Amino acid sequence: MTPVHFYFDFSSPYGYFAAHRVDALAAGFGRGVDWHPILLGLVFETTGGRPLPSQPLKGDYARIDIPRTAGRLGLPYRHPSRFPVSGQAGCRAFYWLRERDPAAARGLALALFDALFVDDRDIGDPAVVIEVAAAQGVDRAALAAALADPRIKALPREATERAMQAGVFGSPFFIVDGEPYWGNDRLGEVAERLGTGPRA
Amino acid sequence: MTPVHFYFDFSSPYGYFAAHRVDALAAGFGRGVDWHPILLGLVFETTGGRPLPSQPLKGDYARIDIPRTAGRLGLPYRHPSRFPVSGQAGCRAFYWLRERDPAAARGLALALFDALFVDDRDIGDPAVVIEVAAAQGVDRAALAAALADPRIKALPREATERAMQAGVFGSPFFIVDGEPYWGNDRLGEVAERLGTGPRA
Repeated sequence: MTPVHFYFDFSSPYGYFAAHRVDALAAGFGRGVDWHPILLGLVFETTGGRPLPSQPLKGDYARIDIPRTAGRLGLPYRHPSRFPVSGQAGCRAFYWLRERDPAAARGLALALFDALFVDDRDIGDPAVVIEVAAAQGVDRAALAAALADPRIKALPREATERAMQAGVFGSPFFIVDGEPYWGNDRLGEVAERLGTGPRA
Repeated sequence: MTPVHFYFDFSSPYGYFAAHRVDALAAGFGRGVDWHPILLGLVFETTGGRPLPSQPLKGDYARIDIPRTAGRLGLPYRHPSRFPVSGQAGCRAFYWLRERDPAAARGLALALFDALFVDDRDIGDPAVVIEVAAAQGVDRAALAAALADPRIKALPREATERAMQAGVFGSPFFIVDGEPYWGNDRLGEVAERLGTGPRA
């Protein structure tokens, strides 16, 4: 069976929530999950979108809704002192590691989310990404070299462009058997869809 | 008990979905609903938002998600041939009628939503609003006069400004005992909130 495709930006609180839920949800239907970190900043160049905190009224709402949602889901959440942060270094590390060990890459993605949204660490800083990865058993020197490798540096943009071609414009975003779902709120619908299977 | 405040734009498909759900949901918790049609176009002047159909990628998603959501909710939906439409005439008619008969105003709002999203009628045209209202038993001549009355014409903008002061930036939007919820997706959370009562 094809995996659930899960798209997210490392600076997205709702992406962090979904990251802690999507694997177990999909596994309940015998499905794996293909994780795709993307750069929402690049997406916004196409869509004209803006980061939530900078939007009048909507930013105020997000500051209420994000901790409220964390509470409902039973997930820890501390709003980062520096926010939003760049997901560049995290994306590079993820795609480099995925070439070697996909499960480790997913573990790193979760650890980066927790570093930002639980421990208030600035994962926009490549040095912090290396620290977080090292704590997961990743070789520091190899990762540091990878973060500066032009081939690896190109991967986040390529992943983001592929995502946009698939219709992705936000975080989190799910594609299940070709059917798109935007938002952590839609994981219930993702589950419904997984339960009924592809439409005839 | 204070009512649930329900904000919507007449041109919002997700507002149409919520309009068919919110009264029964609130009544299940012994609550009434205060309906507030607003002009999202005015809100967007403040927030920099744009109508869904004109947004790259997000507009494509909406064209998938809106009929899909209608199907899940068991509500009829036909995408209007002219879209989006202005909610000015509908708002004026609503607020004028509400001064006389709040229940009739709510009935008119539902009839306007159905006219747009089921029967593909252009409710941006004041003549269509008058037709729809007349079918609900509203006096045509009195409504036609009201739509041109400067005091009535000012009401939609005033309602929209009050809504923005309360933090509203989208449609549908709900405020329950001061707690804001954005989106038809959040009616489940509105119900949870109504079930637990105000926070201590």
